Amino acid sequence: MDGPLTWPRSVRVREVGPRDGLQAERHPVATDDKVRLIEALALAGLRRIEAASFVSPKAVPQMADAAEVWARLRRRPGVVYSALVPNRRGAEAAVEAGADALQVFVAATDSYNMANVRRTVSESLRDVEEVADVARGAGIAVEGTISTAFGCPYEGDVAPGVAIPVVSPYEIAPTPRRVVEVVEAVRGALPRLDINMHFHDTRGTALANAVTALGLGVDYLDSSVGGLGGSPFATGATGNVATEDLVHMLDDMGIETGVDLGALLDAARLAQELVASPLPSRVLRAGPRLAPARPAEAPRAGG
Amino acid sequence: MDGPLTWPRSVRVREVGPRDGLQAERHPVATDDKVRLIEALALAGLRRIEAASFVSPKAVPQMADAAEVWARLRRRPGVVYSALVPNRRGAEAAVEAGADALQVFVAATDSYNMANVRRTVSESLRDVEEVADVARGAGIAVEGTISTAFGCPYEGDVAPGVAIPVVSPYEIAPTPRRVVEVVEAVRGALPRLDINMHFHDTRGTALANAVTALGLGVDYLDSSVGGLGGSPFATGATGNVATEDLVHMLDDMGIETGVDLGALLDAARLAQELVASPLPSRVLRAGPRLAPARPAEAPRAGG
Repeated sequence: MDGPLTWPRSVRVREVGPRDGLQAERHPVATDDKVRLIEALALAGLRRIEAASFVSPKAVPQMADAAEVWARLRRRPGVVYSALVPNRRGAEAAVEAGADALQVFVAATDSYNMANVRRTVSESLRDVEEVADVARGAGIAVEGTISTAFGCPYEGDVAPGVAIPVVSPYEIAPTPRRVVEVVEAVRGALPRLDINMHFHDTRGTALANAVTALGLGVDYLDSSVGGLGGSPFATGATGNVATEDLVHMLDDMGIETGVDLGALLDAARLAQELVASPLPSRVLRAGPRLAPARPAEAPRAGG
Repeated sequence: MDGPLTWPRSVRVREVGPRDGLQAERHPVATDDKVRLIEALALAGLRRIEAASFVSPKAVPQMADAAEVWARLRRRPGVVYSALVPNRRGAEAAVEAGADALQVFVAATDSYNMANVRRTVSESLRDVEEVADVARGAGIAVEGTISTAFGCPYEGDVAPGVAIPVVSPYEIAPTPRRVVEVVEAVRGALPRLDINMHFHDTRGTALANAVTALGLGVDYLDSSVGGLGGSPFATGATGNVATEDLVHMLDDMGIETGVDLGALLDAARLAQELVASPLPSRVLRAGPRLAPARPAEAPRAGG
């Protein structure tokens, strides 16, 4: 029988809100506010924080201050503040700024990769190698991400094997079956790979996918404070799963994350304040499950 | 290893929107509109529809026309149109109106049961027996439901064993661990019971719980078209999981439901029209996963 015994005892949560989330905001968030958010997340116990990206400031003005974020950040010991970088130039700038780890990315499909960075998958794979060289030179870790491992908004379904030549499954809200297929395919080809998974909640399946991944022994998951990122209430939306929704579920499952839910909710409220619009987080809205009872109204017969 | 092999091949979906959903609407929906919605759901392939409740019209004016709903309904062969009833009087009225099955309910906790129907759990259990008598006399099925099997808004956590004396687990958004505990406890005590589960999506865990239940072999799940019911965007909200979100996930997992997603989305749009406000359904908003690509805007670097 499945169940708690097959779930990992602890899960590493990588917080992507400050980069993946704030990068998607129409208006850049002030550098000091970014730093406040990152510090609140570290204070809540998150140990892996995607803090910013070093990309073209013309294409992505939201991340133009990446180096300044690192300069102002009061680092918490034990926390890895990573930078997303598309190429050697970005990698060098990130190392110079003081990033603890680099994150590279490539899509499983050419059409998505072209739309994202105007390069084919094989061109991007060469960039990935150059970034890895820079990381090795600096003695820091590099983590890879495959967008569209589960499916592509342009090309539809992606066969599980397509993702294997690259690094870790990523992006596009799949369903539990696809999680099983991709994890099994990647493990078959690369049994020693440390798999990280990143789920969007576009169609409500993010936590279902997370539970499926946990059942397969995956213990490294991405999430975004408040559910920052994407436009979850728009048509075709692709919102990130909220860190507090993930941590809340893991807490109740008895799975350790090292994150304090109360402090994380403070960070989520700050995130909501910074973007000045309601975030899709469920626990931020409803409160944690074990909060003191406060039914809005008495339930009605059969309710 | 977990995975598709342990999931059931087919799942029975019980649609609760016309009763559980419309009963929670501030303004009663017109009888003909209720009938239109029920007929649209049957047309989509749903075979179990909770159509109305026979309760005090003073306490629940939204359901005052329950008998008239059955009178006007064009029944589709093979569809079970069930009525929720709190007691013998409701049961007799439902049988008289032509209900195909009766649904009884009782909470696992006195405080919730008192707030819901102003009776203790043991008083309600006597009502349940009377309803079962009426059903037996009429030769129709009776299905039981335990509210607060997973936890109670007044009393907090509910030990898994507490639910066993009654019928099937119900209500209050739990997490996967609680699903495992309750299913294992109920199975241990009542191995032949046909377990139905009903999940709220208050904290985003409804589909995670559904997948966990599927992994335990549970193949009978409740859901509500459009996510009707509760006020999912209010504080302390307890929205039902949307039928189309559940069916969409099951479809993609290769699990049969007999439901046509396109026709179901038509019914969800109708539901949204009837309540004149946006429903929390995710697939209604985002479209099915395999819909033709239509990204709102080109993704940005690392997006």
